[in-house]
Amino acid sequence: MNPKSIKEYKKLYNSQRKIVEEKISKIFVAREPRSLYEPSAYLLKSGGKRLRPLLVLLSAKAVGAKFSSAYNAALAVELLHNFTLVHDDIMDNADKRRGRLTLHKKYDTNTAIIAGDSLLSIAYEFLLKDCNGNAKKILETFNRGLIEVCEGQSLDKEFETRNKVTLNEYLEMIRKKTAAMAEMCCSVGAQLAGGSKSEIKALEDYGRNIGIAFQIQDDLLDITADEAEFGKVVGGDLIEGKKTFLFIKAFEKAKNDDKRALFEVVLNKGIKKHQVEEYKQIYERLGVLTDAKNSISKYTEAAVCSLKKLPRKEDIEIFQWIAYSLIERIK
Amino acid sequence: MNPKSIKEYKKLYNSQRKIVEEKISKIFVAREPRSLYEPSAYLLKSGGKRLRPLLVLLSAKAVGAKFSSAYNAALAVELLHNFTLVHDDIMDNADKRRGRLTLHKKYDTNTAIIAGDSLLSIAYEFLLKDCNGNAKKILETFNRGLIEVCEGQSLDKEFETRNKVTLNEYLEMIRKKTAAMAEMCCSVGAQLAGGSKSEIKALEDYGRNIGIAFQIQDDLLDITADEAEFGKVVGGDLIEGKKTFLFIKAFEKAKNDDKRALFEVVLNKGIKKHQVEEYKQIYERLGVLTDAKNSISKYTEAAVCSLKKLPRKEDIEIFQWIAYSLIERIK
Repeated sequence: MNPKSIKEYKKLYNSQRKIVEEKISKIFVAREPRSLYEPSAYLLKSGGKRLRPLLVLLSAKAVGAKFSSAYNAALAVELLHNFTLVHDDIMDNADKRRGRLTLHKKYDTNTAIIAGDSLLSIAYEFLLKDCNGNAKKILETFNRGLIEVCEGQSLDKEFETRNKVTLNEYLEMIRKKTAAMAEMCCSVGAQLAGGSKSEIKALEDYGRNIGIAFQIQDDLLDITADEAEFGKVVGGDLIEGKKTFLFIKAFEKAKNDDKRALFEVVLNKGIKKHQVEEYKQIYERLGVLTDAKNSISKYTEAAVCSLKKLPRKEDIEIFQWIAYSLIERIK
Repeated sequence: MNPKSIKEYKKLYNSQRKIVEEKISKIFVAREPRSLYEPSAYLLKSGGKRLRPLLVLLSAKAVGAKFSSAYNAALAVELLHNFTLVHDDIMDNADKRRGRLTLHKKYDTNTAIIAGDSLLSIAYEFLLKDCNGNAKKILETFNRGLIEVCEGQSLDKEFETRNKVTLNEYLEMIRKKTAAMAEMCCSVGAQLAGGSKSEIKALEDYGRNIGIAFQIQDDLLDITADEAEFGKVVGGDLIEGKKTFLFIKAFEKAKNDDKRALFEVVLNKGIKKHQVEEYKQIYERLGVLTDAKNSISKYTEAAVCSLKKLPRKEDIEIFQWIAYSLIERIK
């Protein structure tokens, strides 16, 4: 891709993101009761990349439709995403998200539970607005995404209490928790726009693979990021004793002292902040940072490769640019 | 209605309820992960009248369809209902439901949040199975029911913190929190079966009106029930300081000492158990128990009256029997 094209893609992404942002700001304005919808409006105002709605819009465009045919569906996936965030934040007892108080901290847990529930109902409302004729199939796709997100979140919580998680189990968990939603976004966009079976499959494969790459990158950034740029404590996953790609891979490869040190993390359900550097060295010694990078590349290449089935070069390239941008991110 | 017919209606209700029960017991058997679906299976096993799925089935039958065309939709509304129960129980910090531990008490709050979320996703999955051709309209109806339930629950919580709630506000709250779901069940059943506009409206009116009657009856039973038969503490709503039909009506009518006594309930956010009898006497003195009975009759009559638009006497009568059974219940 030449720099001129990249500039064009960025411009297109940002202009559509701005439109999505404006539409988001209007969702809750006229809804009652305010005790339900003001917290939701607060949550949705928190910004972010708006990657999921953009995947819907760009997928619709890639199979020949206008953006305008898919804005409601784009809002639907963002609402669904925020539903998962608000309930996940309660479950993780998280205080902040994107530098702002989480909903259950700003209000209370009850408000956050019911706000999450209603976000989901409004997601369906918006999705239905864009469905004409093929509602059943599109709703099934959207709903399958939701089911998998719930299953993935449940597996994630289950893994916290288990001594052993295999890499395959981990990959299945992130496929459900993170990748299923990206896959669904691409699928819904392509289906709304009347894409062919092979176009829909190409975009689903793209979404799923960038989703998996994105999550492994998240795991990698947790230990390799620059703390000032990252905006979070480096090594947070180790401190919390999370069974990430790095940890599981390291545990599989380690022997003797390294194995014992890693088992300590499981037994003690985490480490102290001052131990992070020690464990980073174990990861480096075992080569799992490289393993993660290779895996991220593998899934990104699979995503990019699946795009070949799309008809137009410019659509292929913007999806490529997104895939590479996601793995080049520093936070 | 003659006693022979009533016996027939009971038999039909119970035979269909048994089929629904069997289908419910199979929903979660083959689903993974078990950490997500076992809690849901536990919740759904707790029995109950299964009124909502029966409303779907009987509405479908009333406009000429076979029960078999609507079983998945019937399961969908029961799943949706249980989703609301599990999240409501967290919000109300309830320990027990139907004599068994609530989900967040048997497991934990995180498990109950995610189980509730996934119940909703599976509700949509089942509903979609029965939608053919008219998916968009049916999903809109189902989803509107969900939105109103969320709004109603939110209003209910909001009312707890307010000093004053008018009777109209209260009626709008229970219309959303309780009646919207019964209305939706009847509407979905009738729509699935291809009912005419006037049949759909007749059944929606029936569902909404029995829903409102049901909730006022709930408020009335709280103070008039026999504690042994009721299975709950009589006067629980007063103890918790809930703004029920009785309380709001009494507050509107009361003067001087009675008004002061009622205002104490608001200020202290409830009363002691030993004060229940005193407040029951205030209610009796002000005639609000009679007001409630009159209101229940009014909504029940409106429900029964709307049935006239249905073509067959036997369908009208079974709905009548349900309406009258609901207001004759003792718990």
